[in-house]
Amino acid sequence: MASTKKIAVVIGMMNKTVQSKQCVFGHLFLFFLGVGAGLGASLAKRFAAGGYSVGLIARKMSNLEPVKAEIEQHGQTALCVEADASDAKSLHQAFDVIRTKLGDPEVLVYNAGATRFCGILDLKAEDLQSILNSTVIGGLIASQEVLPSMLKNGKGTILFTGATASMRGSAGCAGLAIPKFGLRALSQSIAREYGPKNIHVAHVIIDGQINKPRQVKEQPDRDINSFLNSDAIAETYWQLHIQPKSTWTQEIDLRPSVEKF
Amino acid sequence: MASTKKIAVVIGMMNKTVQSKQCVFGHLFLFFLGVGAGLGASLAKRFAAGGYSVGLIARKMSNLEPVKAEIEQHGQTALCVEADASDAKSLHQAFDVIRTKLGDPEVLVYNAGATRFCGILDLKAEDLQSILNSTVIGGLIASQEVLPSMLKNGKGTILFTGATASMRGSAGCAGLAIPKFGLRALSQSIAREYGPKNIHVAHVIIDGQINKPRQVKEQPDRDINSFLNSDAIAETYWQLHIQPKSTWTQEIDLRPSVEKF
Amino acid sequence: MASTKKIAVVIGMMNKTVQSKQCVFGHLFLFFLGVGAGLGASLAKRFAAGGYSVGLIARKMSNLEPVKAEIEQHGQTALCVEADASDAKSLHQAFDVIRTKLGDPEVLVYNAGATRFCGILDLKAEDLQSILNSTVIGGLIASQEVLPSMLKNGKGTILFTGATASMRGSAGCAGLAIPKFGLRALSQSIAREYGPKNIHVAHVIIDGQINKPRQVKEQPDRDINSFLNSDAIAETYWQLHIQPKSTWTQEIDLRPSVEKF
Amino acid sequence: MASTKKIAVVIGMMNKTVQSKQCVFGHLFLFFLGVGAGLGASLAKRFAAGGYSVGLIARKMSNLEPVKAEIEQHGQTALCVEADASDAKSLHQAFDVIRTKLGDPEVLVYNAGATRFCGILDLKAEDLQSILNSTVIGGLIASQEVLPSMLKNGKGTILFTGATASMRGSAGCAGLAIPKFGLRALSQSIAREYGPKNIHVAHVIIDGQINKPRQVKEQPDRDINSFLNSDAIAETYWQLHIQPKSTWTQEIDLRPSVEKF
Repeated sequence: MASTKKIAVVIGMMNKTVQSKQCVFGHLFLFFLGVGAGLGASLAKRFAAGGYSVGLIARKMSNLEPVKAEIEQHGQTALCVEADASDAKSLHQAFDVIRTKLGDPEVLVYNAGATRFCGILDLKAEDLQSILNSTVIGGLIASQEVLPSMLKNGKGTILFTGATASMRGSAGCAGLAIPKFGLRALSQSIAREYGPKNIHVAHVIIDGQINKPRQVKEQPDRDINSFLNSDAIAETYWQLHIQPKSTWTQEIDLRPSVEKF
Repeated sequence: MASTKKIAVVIGMMNKTVQSKQCVFGHLFLFFLGVGAGLGASLAKRFAAGGYSVGLIARKMSNLEPVKAEIEQHGQTALCVEADASDAKSLHQAFDVIRTKLGDPEVLVYNAGATRFCGILDLKAEDLQSILNSTVIGGLIASQEVLPSMLKNGKGTILFTGATASMRGSAGCAGLAIPKFGLRALSQSIAREYGPKNIHVAHVIIDGQINKPRQVKEQPDRDINSFLNSDAIAETYWQLHIQPKSTWTQEIDLRPSVEKF
Repeated sequence: MASTKKIAVVIGMMNKTVQSKQCVFGHLFLFFLGVGAGLGASLAKRFAAGGYSVGLIARKMSNLEPVKAEIEQHGQTALCVEADASDAKSLHQAFDVIRTKLGDPEVLVYNAGATRFCGILDLKAEDLQSILNSTVIGGLIASQEVLPSMLKNGKGTILFTGATASMRGSAGCAGLAIPKFGLRALSQSIAREYGPKNIHVAHVIIDGQINKPRQVKEQPDRDINSFLNSDAIAETYWQLHIQPKSTWTQEIDLRPSVEKF
Repeated sequence: MASTKKIAVVIGMMNKTVQSKQCVFGHLFLFFLGVGAGLGASLAKRFAAGGYSVGLIARKMSNLEPVKAEIEQHGQTALCVEADASDAKSLHQAFDVIRTKLGDPEVLVYNAGATRFCGILDLKAEDLQSILNSTVIGGLIASQEVLPSMLKNGKGTILFTGATASMRGSAGCAGLAIPKFGLRALSQSIAREYGPKNIHVAHVIIDGQINKPRQVKEQPDRDINSFLNSDAIAETYWQLHIQPKSTWTQEIDLRPSVEKF
């Protein structure tokens, strides 16, 4: 289907709640970024408000439905597709659905990922492989899905979500720093190859904890302004998208005023 | 005078036309950034459009008058003050005038500077001192002028103009890299001291040549989008200014889509 | 076997011949770093000359035998083990052999890796996975093999080989930058976790082409000093190893005097 | 006087005892780096032990005499010259004396500097100017003194002493970060201009407190290995000096194993 509508795809619906400063040893949980409420939802709503039909990809449809409902209440279009960013085939199929039902994406926001916080001896090779699949390989595949039509249309925006750990490998954070360093490398490589071809690639370093409802609730005495506001982050992604091609940003950081850095 | 008006100060009215990539040996001219048309003018107009009365400081009143006229045509206030950013006394007096006539600045944009492009053996110590005075010492003094009232008012924004040379000391560019590295250090130190006190400090790395009228004219065959657009840069400064304090940027880069980096 | 001998392990025997500056589109070969002559051989010989029995791991025994012969001619011990750094089981077995026959390694040099130079659309997900396995997952597994005995013995050195692409994602180099950024993150995370436990972790950024015999031969008119000298690189690794724990380096760059950077 | 002897010049004899991590507000002292015992002395002794006649420049002759005596006890030559690194004329004269009495320097170690630890509002413009004169302008002048003869002789080494604050502007540390960022820019600019002309320029980031006698004495319960060892630092400078030109380092960090970074 040839598209005259403006299409944006957001992958990963959950708040990015983790960062290297919070690394705790012994926390051997595998943490999936980008499935549910939070930054993903704010991003979807911001691009919908900007006139885009949004394709939403996440691991669980149930996480996507409230966002879809909210977007449709405002008269905009949201298409939800269940997929696992760490599974190439699943991701390919999701983009096929989006292209068929909505059209060619003009914007890709890659907000998916996974991590495990633990010391080096507890980081299992197969877990790191799975984390790299969700974060870096998924980012590569998603980019490959959208770049050909962006090239053909002579424009497009790809935005990657980074973290404190994109710049610094802390103790206990190899499971976040390795994929996030890798994603930053991917972002730079695509930017340098496709920038001159009118495709804007930017990397947003989120340095702090986002105001995800559950996390805010769990810390009732904490100043709300010490959390990054997910709507304000989404506004930054939008501003990056609308920059004219004479004046593009490749990297930007975001943090609360009170954050140590 | 206690102020209820919103006041912004822009120092340096000239286009930042230089960058390390353009370093040419033998070019022994002393180059003053921030006096005249270009980025300074765009910044002044953007903050005026945002409802601010703007104080404009530059070395030559004649460079400021066209900007003032344009701002006043739109029904906003511009106050021009002649001062030399490399001269502490001159800078102090300029701020006294602005405080008396307009009130306490809520925003400071430090866009002044000077440079000399030459090899190391041709960089005179006294010229480097003068360059450092315009760029770093001037940035310190201007910050000291505005910080106390910002602290008292519980808010404020200070924005510094960086360059490619803020991150990289190239051959022939010591005269730009030394002051620009220093200005970046100043920016970070103020950000870390005053961020938690609600004062937002950001550093904008401008990586390319700005669309200053004279430079565009001199390169008639060059694609206009290969120059940074000064109004688009000014929009970025404005967006930094209006970020909520939960979600602040400390550093951002800007370059044309076709720029090598 | 409890060891009183000094044991060093070098993984990857081939010259690191690639770097981001050489990225050429259309070169769709899969390139294995660290199997054969070059930096790996120089590293093995330098640590042998320093009194270490060296365990050498590479993909092909035939690549290891000339190095082993040379080391033994000087009356030192070299143990060669065939293994594929991208295969966890193979790597575990290699370390079992080394521990049984030589003892617990005091030094690990991780010099293995793979890459593919191509544009983003030609970088296959499964190739990037394989590259990440050789470079990052292999580096993790090898570190996990040596850290427990290093901890027990209260000392140890782990040295990682980086590249220009460890710091910069260039066009056409995602296949090198992604794993090398990731390896740098791994290096930092281990350094920050294990430095205070007396294990020295350093990352060497090799920014240029190494004087690998075949490459020197193919460019007969090129000044030999425009190649990095593999013995001089190995000397740097050795100097890092012998730094006292009061005065450790985490990162160092190396390049020819004539290299652009 | 044409020189066949090997000459090294070390500027700044005092231990670099300060670093950004120690920044304390209210400490309004002006701190002179590089005059007396500590790193400067270790550097002088290491280059003397390597066969160099050393010219020592510091603000007080009395600080230099013990070093000179120690060097002469080992049968080597040390020439002490009193000069203020922040005073161009004084520095020019010192180099004239060294050239006349010893010959053309093959090595320059720039270890001088000054700082003031205080918040931004307490950092006086004239103090920052003086600090910049000692650190950056002094580094420029000293380089200009040695580069012409290095060029003529086709070789030379210039080594600059950096700090944690060379990479990071912390709160309360603008007075160190501004000059140290600037010195790093100078180092890079000279390296990129003169590297291809066979002059090796390197920047050493010292990240921690050096084992200066007074400081060690004042903290009797502190593990000696938590201080950087000045002799070990000097050994690193020496190793940088003897790198072959195919394999040069531009930047290296040094810190104690237990240092947070």
